Amino acid sequence: MRARIEAAREQLAGFLGVRPRQVVFTSSGTEAINAAVFGAARAAPGRPIASAGVEHSAVRDASARAAPTVEIGVDRTGRIDLGDVLALVESPPAQRPALVHCQWANHEVATLQPVKEVVAACRAASVPVHVDACAAAGQLPIDLGALGADLVSVSAHKLGGPGGVGALVVAQGSRFEPFIVGGQQERARRAGFENALGIVGFGAAAAALGSGRVEREAERARHLVAQLAAAALRTEGVVVVGDRDPERRLPHLVCLGVAGVEAEPVVIGLDRAGVAVHSGSACSSEALEPSAVLAAMGADPEHSLRLSVGWSTTDVDIAAFASAFGTVVEGLRALAG
Amino acid sequence: MRARIEAAREQLAGFLGVRPRQVVFTSSGTEAINAAVFGAARAAPGRPIASAGVEHSAVRDASARAAPTVEIGVDRTGRIDLGDVLALVESPPAQRPALVHCQWANHEVATLQPVKEVVAACRAASVPVHVDACAAAGQLPIDLGALGADLVSVSAHKLGGPGGVGALVVAQGSRFEPFIVGGQQERARRAGFENALGIVGFGAAAAALGSGRVEREAERARHLVAQLAAAALRTEGVVVVGDRDPERRLPHLVCLGVAGVEAEPVVIGLDRAGVAVHSGSACSSEALEPSAVLAAMGADPEHSLRLSVGWSTTDVDIAAFASAFGTVVEGLRALAG
Repeated sequence: MRARIEAAREQLAGFLGVRPRQVVFTSSGTEAINAAVFGAARAAPGRPIASAGVEHSAVRDASARAAPTVEIGVDRTGRIDLGDVLALVESPPAQRPALVHCQWANHEVATLQPVKEVVAACRAASVPVHVDACAAAGQLPIDLGALGADLVSVSAHKLGGPGGVGALVVAQGSRFEPFIVGGQQERARRAGFENALGIVGFGAAAAALGSGRVEREAERARHLVAQLAAAALRTEGVVVVGDRDPERRLPHLVCLGVAGVEAEPVVIGLDRAGVAVHSGSACSSEALEPSAVLAAMGADPEHSLRLSVGWSTTDVDIAAFASAFGTVVEGLRALAG
Repeated sequence: MRARIEAAREQLAGFLGVRPRQVVFTSSGTEAINAAVFGAARAAPGRPIASAGVEHSAVRDASARAAPTVEIGVDRTGRIDLGDVLALVESPPAQRPALVHCQWANHEVATLQPVKEVVAACRAASVPVHVDACAAAGQLPIDLGALGADLVSVSAHKLGGPGGVGALVVAQGSRFEPFIVGGQQERARRAGFENALGIVGFGAAAAALGSGRVEREAERARHLVAQLAAAALRTEGVVVVGDRDPERRLPHLVCLGVAGVEAEPVVIGLDRAGVAVHSGSACSSEALEPSAVLAAMGADPEHSLRLSVGWSTTDVDIAAFASAFGTVVEGLRALAG
């Protein structure tokens, strides 16, 4: 079992461009994020943690619990304001943050973040930086070795692996305090009997995405999403939320703003037509609360839909969406008005 | 997937004698213990956490990190001193602990703890109590409904389920703060995408132990362990560490003190004879440090061995141990002296 876990660690490290010993397996991307946040807060007690409103709820909630918080602004596409980050890390040393967060890409609106620039700014000022790469890893080529962030979170199920396993990638030489304590597993960086089954699946998924497969899948996803968006935009009062430049967004995801109708009945109407779409992040799916990401961008969280494609999405699925979407939206508008 | 997770929750709850909604699935017994500790510390900041030196390293390490600590004494068999607990919970209300720990049974020396008495004392004083039942669940009948502890930790792999999944059982009406935050999973009590595979396996293992199987396995284990101990005691200078009364110990485990030889060469010598034994807790196996449990009991941690049996242990295994043990120990003593 030990050997299989180490083989999986090598597979994931190879996929991410880091050394195996940098990989700490966790039970989810969410746990990896909690570990990054609470470790940084313990290392610099009283210092604030900085994040943008478009970060995942795990980043926002863990930070708010661990330390005082500072907001980083975003533009209308949900892109993090590099100027805000520079101002923070160049403040007097005693006021610099315990940690700056910068997601690789947004999980609801697909906008890519200026992650290289944010990491470079933080490193230049010796401010620890955490990159939530859960939404991006598996969708785009990721080279964490070149990035050089102190801490990076990834999640197995987002790249085709099983649910319930993730990893925190720790830069070489970075100080790191464990989050779950009381055992020597993971080189004394994460206590608890290992989920060997999940870890082996995570490694296999990472290995399967090598040899250019991420790039090929991304190209295909980009094409399918362009068709989805084009079909949706044929209905009046529909907009793409987030950055529309294909080079500046995740390939597999698009968020639509739909004027005049609530998201939930659209989700239900499309479901009846055999099309599954989403009105928010998977981690808030039970809460059915308006999206905090969209609110932070100044977009309307009550009237938005999240569409995504995967390796199993076919042209037939796209056609089903294209034929149903306008009818569902116009039908709901007629009912409302 | 959701339905399968809920079915597993019902299976585990049925096995433990609690209601399904009391079960919060975690990634290990260790995570469940960390959740119990940090939640209690947050609920009563500045108050101490009380535990005995024979508790698992997860209990000890998490408590030391979360709060000031208070020691509960143990006797020579490793049994927790009920008088110490009573003194703590009957101290002036402002000085009472944030949490008292009492393991169900010791994971190294098998001694059963006065868990019912400790829980009753804590409840009478409204002091939160956590029971680490990881070593006991699956080995003995466990009725957590009758016990009434605020928090109980269990681990899947200890009862035949997969590694990397555990649960924290929360009493009805008990206040509980999540440990991993940032998502609404597990009724907003534990954030992170669920390890459905592990959870389903945990439920299946719990269900398989129903209908008297725990009692039958315990009876068989008690018989095998008695044979192991009798064989070991034929060699001079060997003692059973922990309570020797079969009714006051876990059935499947025995700790031996072996005068005049270090544990490691005995482990290696027995391994060459095809017998796998252990010199400590699984969670400290990489550290190879002397057992803190034995030190707390006043036993000699350098000269002890942990033997355990399971459903796959046969009479042939017992015979292999019986024929090898004396030779290995006497051989090492001859070399040393």
